Amino acid sequence: MISTRYTLIMQRINFDYAAATPLLPEVKRAMAAWVDETANPSSISQAGGRARRALEQARRQVAALLNATSAEISFTSCGTESNNWALRGLVAGNRRKGNHLIISAIEHPSVLLTAKRLAMEGADLTILPVDREGLVSPQELKAALKPATVLVSIMTANGEVGTIEPIQELAAVAHEHGALFHSDAIAAAGSVELDVKRLGVDAMSLAANAFYGPQGAAALFLREGVRILPLLEGGGQEHGGRSGTEAVAAIVGMGAAAELAAQRLGQRRERLARLRDRLRDGLSARLEGRRLNGSWTLRLPQNLHLCIDGVSSEPLVLGLEQAGVVVGIGSACNSKAMRPSHVLKAMGLSDDEARGALVFTVGEPTTEEEIDRALELIPVVIEKLRRVTKLTVRT
Amino acid sequence: MISTRYTLIMQRINFDYAAATPLLPEVKRAMAAWVDETANPSSISQAGGRARRALEQARRQVAALLNATSAEISFTSCGTESNNWALRGLVAGNRRKGNHLIISAIEHPSVLLTAKRLAMEGADLTILPVDREGLVSPQELKAALKPATVLVSIMTANGEVGTIEPIQELAAVAHEHGALFHSDAIAAAGSVELDVKRLGVDAMSLAANAFYGPQGAAALFLREGVRILPLLEGGGQEHGGRSGTEAVAAIVGMGAAAELAAQRLGQRRERLARLRDRLRDGLSARLEGRRLNGSWTLRLPQNLHLCIDGVSSEPLVLGLEQAGVVVGIGSACNSKAMRPSHVLKAMGLSDDEARGALVFTVGEPTTEEEIDRALELIPVVIEKLRRVTKLTVRT
Repeated sequence: MISTRYTLIMQRINFDYAAATPLLPEVKRAMAAWVDETANPSSISQAGGRARRALEQARRQVAALLNATSAEISFTSCGTESNNWALRGLVAGNRRKGNHLIISAIEHPSVLLTAKRLAMEGADLTILPVDREGLVSPQELKAALKPATVLVSIMTANGEVGTIEPIQELAAVAHEHGALFHSDAIAAAGSVELDVKRLGVDAMSLAANAFYGPQGAAALFLREGVRILPLLEGGGQEHGGRSGTEAVAAIVGMGAAAELAAQRLGQRRERLARLRDRLRDGLSARLEGRRLNGSWTLRLPQNLHLCIDGVSSEPLVLGLEQAGVVVGIGSACNSKAMRPSHVLKAMGLSDDEARGALVFTVGEPTTEEEIDRALELIPVVIEKLRRVTKLTVRT
Repeated sequence: MISTRYTLIMQRINFDYAAATPLLPEVKRAMAAWVDETANPSSISQAGGRARRALEQARRQVAALLNATSAEISFTSCGTESNNWALRGLVAGNRRKGNHLIISAIEHPSVLLTAKRLAMEGADLTILPVDREGLVSPQELKAALKPATVLVSIMTANGEVGTIEPIQELAAVAHEHGALFHSDAIAAAGSVELDVKRLGVDAMSLAANAFYGPQGAAALFLREGVRILPLLEGGGQEHGGRSGTEAVAAIVGMGAAAELAAQRLGQRRERLARLRDRLRDGLSARLEGRRLNGSWTLRLPQNLHLCIDGVSSEPLVLGLEQAGVVVGIGSACNSKAMRPSHVLKAMGLSDDEARGALVFTVGEPTTEEEIDRALELIPVVIEKLRRVTKLTVRT
């Protein structure tokens, strides 16, 4: 009996796939051989040759996910590096055009802070607002463009509130004015179709750990002919654009995860949306005082973002985890800071409205049974916390 | 019979541990749990907490290897990133002192090219020469220092020719003139004692894959109080110095490899030197027309660098590998370029002398039997190639 109870307690329901996606079995299998055989792809030995061929296969797999060519894919170490490199490298590589940069107010800190640093170093920076749903308007982008605009960087989807931006229209507007267009697609990759030709982007960031691949491998797509300066210099790996010994096992895992994402995209998207909708409908029926944030039509299939009245996120997340339900607060990258999310503020929510923010993300392992169990647990935890909060406020 | 021959042919003797060191079994075991549990250390969930604790353990293990504190260790993705960050970040973080930077002529391309890029961006750069053994002179450093010198960066040991630099004296000279001292210890870590307090360095780069840890994890030691600007900005990981989701499995592996290196240092150093000396003595007895490069007293225990008269490195490396002996040409990071090594040129070797350069590095898996088998094979391959080369030159 004791061991059974223990098992039940340990079976947490995970709705925090935005923080980390588990490795799919196929990804683990692909990586296994490369954990055992550490070879340097720059070595002219036969082992080096095998490592090079493994890298090139991964490059083709990632290129296929984006409808790009292998020559257009450079591997990096994490999404933050891809975003930092895209902004710094594209601005530095295209100084002749000018020194103006445009981003949106809801970008990930790796875009936002890099842009602000570039501004401190002398660049002219425009930060576009978003509407109540988190959408960037192509008209506002058009109005912000200048002859000196080098680069526009707007994320494909916001991993916190789930809104998918109109990238195709935004990229077209940027191109009309001769500016390059980069998109941070880290939250979107694996559950949203990303065809760089159709979208018309010049650069796009991806991270393997957001689509069931390993930590330590990410990529930057760079359209052929786009000028960029390296962020990391040295041995000249990755077409000379990103030096450093390649993390072969992680990159091989990224390739496998990209191939699976391409194969399963439609099916995964539908299944995740169905599970997410079941969670949304169930919570709507069972909970008073909850607000759904972000766009409902232009939305990541795995994402549900709620603000719960009368409670704060941190005790709520901790209380839910104690009850066996793991959810997120916002950007996992910011969660330690415990500040109201810059994304929600940009969408016009007051500090008070943003206080009880919760992010639910479903993933490949999520089941209907998990959703149904969570629907029993969540309202209980929230009601309990609301009562405690009221008592605390009264005394 | 056929399978036995096949096995013999496939049992290559590896003398290219400079390109890649295999994971030690203890490292693999430490990593295994973290390949299965992908958790984001920035998540406030319990899984995030476990990942944070695993990172902090790895940080303590790496700190212990260097006699540093945990707060002084920042994880990065590769040695190249550590070196790029050290140079860019320390120069940018200490602009008030001046804009002069000193490196040596035999630095890894990740230091050399970053310094040259900084010079293109306006920094004043001095590249110190080395003597015939590859040694940087503290007197020459003293003469090169200026009031505006912000940073001196000289490698602890050169992975190609094996020379260990007098870091303690060089750092003291730099400090006398108020300059910071960084050392790229990537080739040295794991087989040379690295006590940052005794050496007196302000910053030091390490890479896990050079000491039997995984690719995808590296570190920068930064003495407490040293001002540095981040290279990667975003979520504020690694004490705010290096943003990006951490590659937990690789970092855990780096920690385990650092702990093993600290435990085994003396024993490993002695054993590697004994094996390397057996190879050196055997080749000296069996080979005419070979020159030993680098210092013999101040030398990495695992390294043997030879120039072979009358042959070129590339066909020699390929011929040796066909015979079952894997050796390196020089910096694996440069091997694709097939240019005479900048290290040998800086040491004063002519293009002709540098043409037949071979780097032998022994490693933990190396055995005396492998050395003895290789000593039978190597002279035969070299003689055969010399005959072919002579014939080709004659016709």
